[in-house]
Amino acid sequence: MCGAETTNHSTESNGFGGNLSLIDLDPGNPTVFEPYWRRMGDKCRVVIPGCELMSYKAATKPGKVCWFLLPELEDAIVRLHRLVGNAVVDDRYIVVGTGSTQLYQAALYALSNPASLKPINVVSAAPYYSCYPEETDYLCSRLYKWAGDANEYNANKSGPFIEVVNSPNNPNGSLRESVVKDCGQGKLIHDLAYYWPQFMPINRPADHDLMYFTFSKCTGHAGSRIGWALVKDREVAIKMTKYIELNSIGVSKDSQFRTAKIMELLCNEHKEFGLNSSNNFFEYGNRLMAQRWESLREAIGSSDLFSVPSFERQYCFFLGRPTKPYPAFAWLKCNEETEDCGSLLRRYNILGRNGKRFGADAKYLRISMLSSDDVFEDFLDRLNAIRLFEE
Amino acid sequence: MCGAETTNHSTESNGFGGNLSLIDLDPGNPTVFEPYWRRMGDKCRVVIPGCELMSYKAATKPGKVCWFLLPELEDAIVRLHRLVGNAVVDDRYIVVGTGSTQLYQAALYALSNPASLKPINVVSAAPYYSCYPEETDYLCSRLYKWAGDANEYNANKSGPFIEVVNSPNNPNGSLRESVVKDCGQGKLIHDLAYYWPQFMPINRPADHDLMYFTFSKCTGHAGSRIGWALVKDREVAIKMTKYIELNSIGVSKDSQFRTAKIMELLCNEHKEFGLNSSNNFFEYGNRLMAQRWESLREAIGSSDLFSVPSFERQYCFFLGRPTKPYPAFAWLKCNEETEDCGSLLRRYNILGRNGKRFGADAKYLRISMLSSDDVFEDFLDRLNAIRLFEE
Repeated sequence: MCGAETTNHSTESNGFGGNLSLIDLDPGNPTVFEPYWRRMGDKCRVVIPGCELMSYKAATKPGKVCWFLLPELEDAIVRLHRLVGNAVVDDRYIVVGTGSTQLYQAALYALSNPASLKPINVVSAAPYYSCYPEETDYLCSRLYKWAGDANEYNANKSGPFIEVVNSPNNPNGSLRESVVKDCGQGKLIHDLAYYWPQFMPINRPADHDLMYFTFSKCTGHAGSRIGWALVKDREVAIKMTKYIELNSIGVSKDSQFRTAKIMELLCNEHKEFGLNSSNNFFEYGNRLMAQRWESLREAIGSSDLFSVPSFERQYCFFLGRPTKPYPAFAWLKCNEETEDCGSLLRRYNILGRNGKRFGADAKYLRISMLSSDDVFEDFLDRLNAIRLFEE
Repeated sequence: MCGAETTNHSTESNGFGGNLSLIDLDPGNPTVFEPYWRRMGDKCRVVIPGCELMSYKAATKPGKVCWFLLPELEDAIVRLHRLVGNAVVDDRYIVVGTGSTQLYQAALYALSNPASLKPINVVSAAPYYSCYPEETDYLCSRLYKWAGDANEYNANKSGPFIEVVNSPNNPNGSLRESVVKDCGQGKLIHDLAYYWPQFMPINRPADHDLMYFTFSKCTGHAGSRIGWALVKDREVAIKMTKYIELNSIGVSKDSQFRTAKIMELLCNEHKEFGLNSSNNFFEYGNRLMAQRWESLREAIGSSDLFSVPSFERQYCFFLGRPTKPYPAFAWLKCNEETEDCGSLLRRYNILGRNGKRFGADAKYLRISMLSSDDVFEDFLDRLNAIRLFEE
């Protein structure tokens, strides 16, 4: 996968004796936030009676198109975005999905045209999220096909396209806009999974035609598989809903219910205690990510073995103070002499995801910054040791 | 949909004054069992702490292939099938899906061959489940395509195929086996959604290469979107798991957890109180469905307006007594003079699903037997009134 697949590598020769435990920083499993939810205890548990949430349908309000979206989740999504200020929710249709992964595919279905003779080209600027190519092509659809790096796409030559804009970008944390020229023929999908105050200063509410978020990265509840799209055009929202109907007859009501409860808790805590409470999730998350990035930069140090991107401090309207981006992944680059950053780290039994999978170069390796505390500490220790050994 | 879509029809002229409320028996939403779960109260509620079930992954046991299947759900599935005796679970891989709908598509993906020049043909004997054609074709995959009624499929002429065997069959309740000759080229999917003691005498444990079930029809918890496949071949199970990984990075852990709890409750109640307790879900469900079918046959009566299929009594090894099939749907047929059963009932503001959608004839209409008590009572009353009026 795609955030979670299992990997199996044996330790190669590394000069440390070869008995290093595996540090798997390939998937983006957001276990970093678990201690926060443990601390919140009973406040964030949900109770579901056996006779509830049994129907395929939800009691949707008039005018809504997503017939399986629980109204309490819809309300919670709207309230959370208004609180955080990261997305325009007025005059938008909300479509819930089994994670943003299902919504990405629903969007491709909705934006393509079955009457077209050729599949529409799907592009994203490299380095792009490593799962887009496979998620686009695994069913060999005649509706759409992966067409690679958006930076190299020529719409005049190759025709209609869908561009996926992932901002802040996975893997490298950059803020992004569409890059393909001749947007008359192009349709845009905005994947905003990481546009939350723990990862990125919120400097404006995103206001795109089709944008989606995921609970996995918002609060760390990846196991619930809940994502939601905010869609301007009614017909596009209807087609996305149709996709999810055909693909899985809706989305787990149990997870929708739990997501709504947890979002409501975030909003209630914020309303009651503001930013200055240690219970404010986003404030807590931002400080935690800041610490991790500081420790990582320290571990890399003045070494010329590795580098990671630099980011400018910006004012965050939600936190009410300037903050730097603290991306969920470190886009680690090794120095000129090293061809393959992944091979170097694998010798020390550290796994990341090879830059090639993102349409980039093996000099890059994506490293998850969202592991549990002990795994992250082990990673830093080993990075220090590598530096001493290799330099 | 596919079990749940909303429909909008106005009342046509019907001789009753035209002010009849809508009775929607088109979808198969299993609200019939809600009162049982209400009665079970605290016994069947689940509590999920905010810090639990956060990971993409599950702590799967060694040798398992479905990396997102909760071990407690796997154990509960095995225990329930052993108790009911409706499926062989030994030496099978279990793959969990977002309802059986996702598993159907995972099976098509797993049984098709990307290297093949032509899509593999997918067939099912008419009348077939109305959603198979659209679920097969909506993405215009080059891997597989819908090829219609299995009774009319000539494998020698048209080549490799996948046959979906839905038994007991939706819409007509018949027990089924594969019908296409020349099975050397064919692959089989067994959709056993309704093979539970409330609907069908359990006369043997199903023992097929690839079979799937769904929580929706097992207990009525359609909103949880949980299905599971029992798969003999490891490589097929791996490919199905891969499909679900690419399609939605796994399946809601919240719903898996709740499903496991409710299945465990069914087994525990059975172990403690046996069949003679009114708390035995399957015994309760079987008697409820028997009553509904008896009332329906009474309402149709000696009329020659409508008929429904007849079923033979058979010994059910789970219930330990002979019982008839009581299908989840009535496959209503109107008499020779009426061309369109749906139009006739729509004049009285009753909705069913037209036989044409099942590859059959408009003389047939599928009527859900799983509605809530009050809707079902209204339906019977109106059926009686139609008989008086039309005859």
